[in-house]
Amino acid sequence: MKVICTRQNLVQGVTTAQRAVSAKNTMPVLAGILITARDHYLEFQATDMEMGIQCTVPCTVQEAGSIVLPAKYLGEIVRRLPDAPIQIETGQGTNVVIRYGQSEISINGFHDEEFPVFPKQQGKTSITIPEEDLKEYLRQILFATSTEETRPVFTGVLMELSEGNLRLVATDTHRLALRDVKINTEISDVSMIIPGKTLNELARVIGAADQEVTISLAENTVIFGMEDTVLVSRLIEGQFPNYRQVIPQSYKTRIRVKTKELLESVERASLLARVGTQIIRLHIEQDKIIITANTEVGRIHEEIAVYLQGEPMQIAFNANYLIDALRACGSDNIYLDLSGPLSPGILRPVEGEDYLSLILPMRTI
Amino acid sequence: MKVICTRQNLVQGVTTAQRAVSAKNTMPVLAGILITARDHYLEFQATDMEMGIQCTVPCTVQEAGSIVLPAKYLGEIVRRLPDAPIQIETGQGTNVVIRYGQSEISINGFHDEEFPVFPKQQGKTSITIPEEDLKEYLRQILFATSTEETRPVFTGVLMELSEGNLRLVATDTHRLALRDVKINTEISDVSMIIPGKTLNELARVIGAADQEVTISLAENTVIFGMEDTVLVSRLIEGQFPNYRQVIPQSYKTRIRVKTKELLESVERASLLARVGTQIIRLHIEQDKIIITANTEVGRIHEEIAVYLQGEPMQIAFNANYLIDALRACGSDNIYLDLSGPLSPGILRPVEGEDYLSLILPMRTI
Repeated sequence: MKVICTRQNLVQGVTTAQRAVSAKNTMPVLAGILITARDHYLEFQATDMEMGIQCTVPCTVQEAGSIVLPAKYLGEIVRRLPDAPIQIETGQGTNVVIRYGQSEISINGFHDEEFPVFPKQQGKTSITIPEEDLKEYLRQILFATSTEETRPVFTGVLMELSEGNLRLVATDTHRLALRDVKINTEISDVSMIIPGKTLNELARVIGAADQEVTISLAENTVIFGMEDTVLVSRLIEGQFPNYRQVIPQSYKTRIRVKTKELLESVERASLLARVGTQIIRLHIEQDKIIITANTEVGRIHEEIAVYLQGEPMQIAFNANYLIDALRACGSDNIYLDLSGPLSPGILRPVEGEDYLSLILPMRTI
Repeated sequence: MKVICTRQNLVQGVTTAQRAVSAKNTMPVLAGILITARDHYLEFQATDMEMGIQCTVPCTVQEAGSIVLPAKYLGEIVRRLPDAPIQIETGQGTNVVIRYGQSEISINGFHDEEFPVFPKQQGKTSITIPEEDLKEYLRQILFATSTEETRPVFTGVLMELSEGNLRLVATDTHRLALRDVKINTEISDVSMIIPGKTLNELARVIGAADQEVTISLAENTVIFGMEDTVLVSRLIEGQFPNYRQVIPQSYKTRIRVKTKELLESVERASLLARVGTQIIRLHIEQDKIIITANTEVGRIHEEIAVYLQGEPMQIAFNANYLIDALRACGSDNIYLDLSGPLSPGILRPVEGEDYLSLILPMRTI
């Protein structure tokens, strides 16, 4: 293999593929990135056997071929290379020489045949979504996933396709986030659970304006196709909880409040609540909401103007859950709907019915 | 105590004083900031018994008085307060109420009489330096201090005053940095060792354009006076090593090189050297310097154009020490002066004789 590539393209390829390299892999070769030169491009591939990323960048190929290089060193090196044409050439055995100006770095890699094959199958069913939109939807959903590996379905995001609607749902059993997206597709009755980790990495890769992501489903696998990058991930097996029955269909109390005002109040209250149980209390009255917390450090009493529909209400939440939900809602004004001190609270943007997040209340004495 | 203050002034006072609060203090009250209201200002004081900071900000005093509040909570709270007039009022016992808009926070503090007295003595001798300049001098010196508490003098910076010259010297025995500053003073034969920790905090506090720092010396104490802030620190007792005899007065080899080019090459070499001993080798030839490192990960060979005076030379350095010295030199072009493979290397800015840093070489087999 012998290629000439710009620093910028090298950094792009290595940085993107590197996201699939796990620190705790079992096979030494998985600490590497498979680099393949063919036609007029360089292809970077990495995988932790759960998720794989492939990124393709243009380059001048003088000799086709491939090699596996250690991701950590390669990443640090390419980011520090000068902005000059960079030549990469395989030498003796698994040795690779990177040349720039009058200088060169030689590092040792692995044989490419040791590297697992990237799952290339095309999905049968596929939909497309603008990258910027999907990035925002993921931000609104991913905070509600669990990080506890003991119950895998809660670490994933349910993706349901039915009748022109894509639905994303995540829950860690204490809170839940749900996003509906109108899409132009004939596909229906498709349901899968995608690992939250995969979607976190996807959210970091996407975001370009005027670009689209193609989401395809193959057997036990989901494939996200971007312009230069493909991300493949296993699905999580198991039954996602019946989230529909958790979401109340009515409310006794609805307040409309400025998201930023409520968020800042709850953030202050959480500073004091932090030393205790993270409990903050909401007292909803005719034209205001009173937020209080009371711990050994001190106590806080905040008042915010609200529009109330329905009855006054008192409820207690975990401050961090409320902060996460308020940050995720993506709207200047929200409704908070309550049905009772022991029923879940629901946050909805004032505009549209496409998003909601739900938080279970805390019991207080 | 009862005052009304802006958020900005509160944040300024708390953030500045907080720098003197140690996480590992022995007296509970030292986790606090003493707040005193008098005349038309609020005074914030904190100390870890080695260093003390006092910061004064304007406010409306409705009732003079003082209280000690926990620094950590106070800092987090004031930074999150809204941009509105904020009232602080002491209540029952050590309770304090912070009011803003329709909201309030009440936190528990300590009695002010438990707080140690801030050393107010004025120094006998004093000099003044522009804040921006001193900040840069400190940046050029502090990297060479040691963090090993077992040998206190090496954790400090020697400050010598003699005949219109201020000299700052630091060394951790592997490297040394020295800065001379012309100042307008009659003071001579003053020498003190200031804790590096103190100067690190000073460097964070200063930097305002058109402001000066007054440095005064009292018994075992140095006092840095800024516009609104006073920083007081104990001195380190002991004998600073005779640094003069370490600095070679001549050289066999001098190269002139672009600082940025050499820095970037050494940074790349250090990526590979990191897995080993951090040794990088410099081969100085007629018109170039070759930087190499060789470890189990791979090897690097970098070439940079230089102007050579004197003889070709080979020498090995710890890559990190060379990186620190190149970042600190504050000049686009530097001289590197060498006297032999086992003699220290000296870096000097091409402009001026006021600064140098010295690095001991590494023995290689």
